[in-house]
Amino acid sequence: MHAEQRQRTNDFLKARGLSRALFSHPESLTWLTGFAPFVELGYSPYTFGPPLLWVEDGHYTLVVLDSQVPYTFGVGDDDDVTVLSVQGYTVDRPIRPVETLREALGGLLRKSGVRGGDVGIERDTLSMTELEIASDALGWPGWVPLDHALRPLRMVKTEEELVKLRQAFLLADVGYAAAQAVIRPGIREIDVWGELTSAIMRADGARVALGNDCTAGTRDFNIGGVPGVVPVPEGGSIIVDISAIHRGYSSDGCRTFYAGEPSADMKRRHLFIETALDYAISLVRPGVVAREIDEKVRAFVRDGGYPVYPHHTGHGIGASLHEEPRIVPYNDVVLEAGMVILLEPGTYVPGQTGCRLEHGMIVTHDGVEIISHYPIRPF
Amino acid sequence: MHAEQRQRTNDFLKARGLSRALFSHPESLTWLTGFAPFVELGYSPYTFGPPLLWVEDGHYTLVVLDSQVPYTFGVGDDDDVTVLSVQGYTVDRPIRPVETLREALGGLLRKSGVRGGDVGIERDTLSMTELEIASDALGWPGWVPLDHALRPLRMVKTEEELVKLRQAFLLADVGYAAAQAVIRPGIREIDVWGELTSAIMRADGARVALGNDCTAGTRDFNIGGVPGVVPVPEGGSIIVDISAIHRGYSSDGCRTFYAGEPSADMKRRHLFIETALDYAISLVRPGVVAREIDEKVRAFVRDGGYPVYPHHTGHGIGASLHEEPRIVPYNDVVLEAGMVILLEPGTYVPGQTGCRLEHGMIVTHDGVEIISHYPIRPF
Repeated sequence: MHAEQRQRTNDFLKARGLSRALFSHPESLTWLTGFAPFVELGYSPYTFGPPLLWVEDGHYTLVVLDSQVPYTFGVGDDDDVTVLSVQGYTVDRPIRPVETLREALGGLLRKSGVRGGDVGIERDTLSMTELEIASDALGWPGWVPLDHALRPLRMVKTEEELVKLRQAFLLADVGYAAAQAVIRPGIREIDVWGELTSAIMRADGARVALGNDCTAGTRDFNIGGVPGVVPVPEGGSIIVDISAIHRGYSSDGCRTFYAGEPSADMKRRHLFIETALDYAISLVRPGVVAREIDEKVRAFVRDGGYPVYPHHTGHGIGASLHEEPRIVPYNDVVLEAGMVILLEPGTYVPGQTGCRLEHGMIVTHDGVEIISHYPIRPF
Repeated sequence: MHAEQRQRTNDFLKARGLSRALFSHPESLTWLTGFAPFVELGYSPYTFGPPLLWVEDGHYTLVVLDSQVPYTFGVGDDDDVTVLSVQGYTVDRPIRPVETLREALGGLLRKSGVRGGDVGIERDTLSMTELEIASDALGWPGWVPLDHALRPLRMVKTEEELVKLRQAFLLADVGYAAAQAVIRPGIREIDVWGELTSAIMRADGARVALGNDCTAGTRDFNIGGVPGVVPVPEGGSIIVDISAIHRGYSSDGCRTFYAGEPSADMKRRHLFIETALDYAISLVRPGVVAREIDEKVRAFVRDGGYPVYPHHTGHGIGASLHEEPRIVPYNDVVLEAGMVILLEPGTYVPGQTGCRLEHGMIVTHDGVEIISHYPIRPF
């Protein structure tokens, strides 16, 4: 699993003259190995910091807590990847995460031993304790920061990633269908979210980490936000923006629904944002610069006489929810085939109504393939 | 909010001769300020590491990403706490979390300036980058590790914490009711979990981070695990173990349900574990040593002729799911009034059936007050 990612990384490390690296950013670990940990409960009381990935001469060792082993399914299938499990929970003695990590990670690194050459690290996400354990074992080598270094390598997706992403987008489609089925005057944002959450988990047969927004148009800030007790009034709009994380890969997307019949003005607004989304999609092909899409779509909305959305026009997606290429005013990144992006024009009238419509797509050799299938027109 | 926690910490720091500290563990931040971030999506692409809490001469400054400000509700109400927001998401320039943190945290710490005395830190959860930013601003002072130092201070809960914990336990009760209402022969674990998730969110009026187990008794490993597509057969058992995190505070608990009518043997087993739980609860009072409860309850199950559970007999709970006092074989911690603990005897026959029953309770001056209310006998 994810052999191509490691090949790209091996080439990258070789070009930097590095034969050893210690990766610590969760996105890097997922991208390099397919490791997809359960995240929904936050910090574990049985460990500290993220899992770690040690790379030595092209061999990758993923160091995880024993309770995370179920989420390494498939990770160790290739010859160049080993999963090393560290004991977390036990009833036999006090929980000592530092000591157990020192034993496991230190032992692993001592095999590498003191030798010439620098070691690459992601220092933004490596704790002092982890650094000390690594340094003790490796004899304090030179450390070369690799933070964000893998991001450019991650932009064009592999075939394996496209499979995971398509599945994640299908789960979001399930959520939109479940949401639309229950939206009626008086329903609260959280009721809608509860329904779509349950539907997505039942469809996937597993728990699914979910974002993002479920926001009635009548909110003062109605661009997005977590669902609460705000009801959707008769004819009112509600933005439902779903990210479903499937095997470490995220979907994204947004639909705008209405409780009962929207007004003629709200329909016009919705149809206009549909045309803005279609226009945005029509701009996408290899060779186009990200900021040019951003500029043109903002101009399209402005010229249509609607307030321009303050957020990004779109973004890449993969082992993180938002990544390059960001479709934003400053970004000179050039689109390439195999990138997966979202486009999401919208327009908002605070306290009254909002509309955002977002499709996900693979950049192809001559345009796009849309991978979010739920209809964007609900009436 | 949480002024008593800070008073305990001020006293602790003074006794250690420290006037300044930088806390980085998520549990510490919640306990010290009431900060309750949204965790269910894992790592944010707009930051790195956890939020941070800087303490100087009894004044606390919580450094959070701007998107986390909604989760600081009430945190800055007291004079001794300030919330400092760091920009994350923007469309105007590349995302530069290190630079923005350097500006915000570095600026904050430079006001403190180079001066004598060590600075306390939680090094297990402080990244190299964060340390460097702090060190640059403070002139590389002496660093004193404070990892786990707050844990003993956290054992006895404050009145504010008891309010949050009671609410979290009520949400779990809502989940048990929703689960029992849908459990019937053939239902899958994930269907049960979807129902209870939706019910808990609707009851709370907000998203709620949830753990732990939803596991059919017919699984080979049937002690616990995330829900999947395993169906509960006619007469089969299913363990439903819910933690609901409310404003940063976790509940816990476990019920065992049956799809249709359990066999006479399964009923006997269930009634026996009820007596084991009652017995465990009868042992709790101030002055009792944790491991003595553990020993006696394990002996009770063994003497009853049932396989003894391999997990803890119980544990404390609060700003983390599992904390001191752990009710486990090695633990000499003495129970005190105001602690909140779980007790959870069980017995398991792999591939056939399992039963675990878990109540939450406050240790009182003469025993306990049970704070999980859903009935433990489902038939």
